[in-house]
Amino acid sequence: MLIQHLPLLCSKRIILASGSPRRAELLRGLGLKIEVVPSTFAENLEKSAFSSPGEYVVETALCKAIDVTRNITVVDGGKRPDLVIGADTVVELNGKILEKPQDEKDAFNMLSSLSGCQHKVYTGVSLVLLPSIPDPKIGDPPVVRTFWEETKVEFARIDDIAINAYINSGEPMDKAGGYGIQGIGGTFVKSISGCFFNVMGFPIHRFAAEIDQLVKSAAFPD
Amino acid sequence: MLIQHLPLLCSKRIILASGSPRRAELLRGLGLKIEVVPSTFAENLEKSAFSSPGEYVVETALCKAIDVTRNITVVDGGKRPDLVIGADTVVELNGKILEKPQDEKDAFNMLSSLSGCQHKVYTGVSLVLLPSIPDPKIGDPPVVRTFWEETKVEFARIDDIAINAYINSGEPMDKAGGYGIQGIGGTFVKSISGCFFNVMGFPIHRFAAEIDQLVKSAAFPD
Repeated sequence: MLIQHLPLLCSKRIILASGSPRRAELLRGLGLKIEVVPSTFAENLEKSAFSSPGEYVVETALCKAIDVTRNITVVDGGKRPDLVIGADTVVELNGKILEKPQDEKDAFNMLSSLSGCQHKVYTGVSLVLLPSIPDPKIGDPPVVRTFWEETKVEFARIDDIAINAYINSGEPMDKAGGYGIQGIGGTFVKSISGCFFNVMGFPIHRFAAEIDQLVKSAAFPD
Repeated sequence: MLIQHLPLLCSKRIILASGSPRRAELLRGLGLKIEVVPSTFAENLEKSAFSSPGEYVVETALCKAIDVTRNITVVDGGKRPDLVIGADTVVELNGKILEKPQDEKDAFNMLSSLSGCQHKVYTGVSLVLLPSIPDPKIGDPPVVRTFWEETKVEFARIDDIAINAYINSGEPMDKAGGYGIQGIGGTFVKSISGCFFNVMGFPIHRFAAEIDQLVKSAAFPD
């Protein structure tokens, strides 16, 4: 698990390549010291090119991490990062992928479609470990590990009054599928099956298990 | 749902009869204004007298709410509360109920027994609504509604090193079953089936649905 590796991890420079305040909060809640450097990657991969939403989010997560890794190694004259973390989350309902709502009307349509139904949430994560040498161009290539998790979410039936009140609260607009399970949106969720934190945007159990393996395999040197 | 009733609920005096900071945080996160008045109820009901852990937690939750309701109506000269909320949470593993660990050794034994296994978390909630008349002794009896929720939790295999590091973090000691799913303990949880917030100590979807019914039935007057 992750907890016994915290002293090692806290000596590393770890970058979260995502502007999501929820992801930063989750990682810091585990005791990690992270820097947030949002990616400039356009997040415009062609969804139909992927066999599942999981493959799509993991590729977007990788593009985000690689984008930030490149920018940092070029721009930042300081200490190179040891680990860059990318992540991406989408909601899937009846074969359709829902990302962040474009506007309030879009949020209303998303929440109406989720009402009384089960949907799935996918979060892809990429871990890019950089070798501890001065210049990555002449050194070993980075170690890259990617994974994704799926969580089933059972939404309660919610009427238009509740949906409009929720949109007026401002919570839906920056969230995949138009709701935040950790906020007022949590009252709409009857039950889930899988990792809760995956729905929030970062599957912390799987992340901890992958970091444990990386440290034990010496991919994450002392 | 709860969100459209927030203006009404914010005009009421709502008491949380529990000292758990997590429950207060969850209720305030929903937009409710609550006062925290921890119960002095001894929480010593005979477990074998109940047919299920759900029946046990719901009775403890009710005793807590009644205790606080009595103390407030006797002691507090101010505005009588409109709603008193009681809650209690336990973990059940192979027929045995786990509450808060007595000491670090107890926490170690609990976490060892949860490692690699599925357990269940039960939270009981009681809602005591007081009629809006000056003296409850001569008025209508309070409306009482109780319910409990069960969530299945799949724990990862965790070794002694991780358990000891977790106990040293201080997180386990005030939590039923010796772990906090919303903290570092979340890294130990592979998946859940049911309401996540029930594991944190307060099932917010069910609470919102019950409040919605109470308001619509006029048990919660304007």
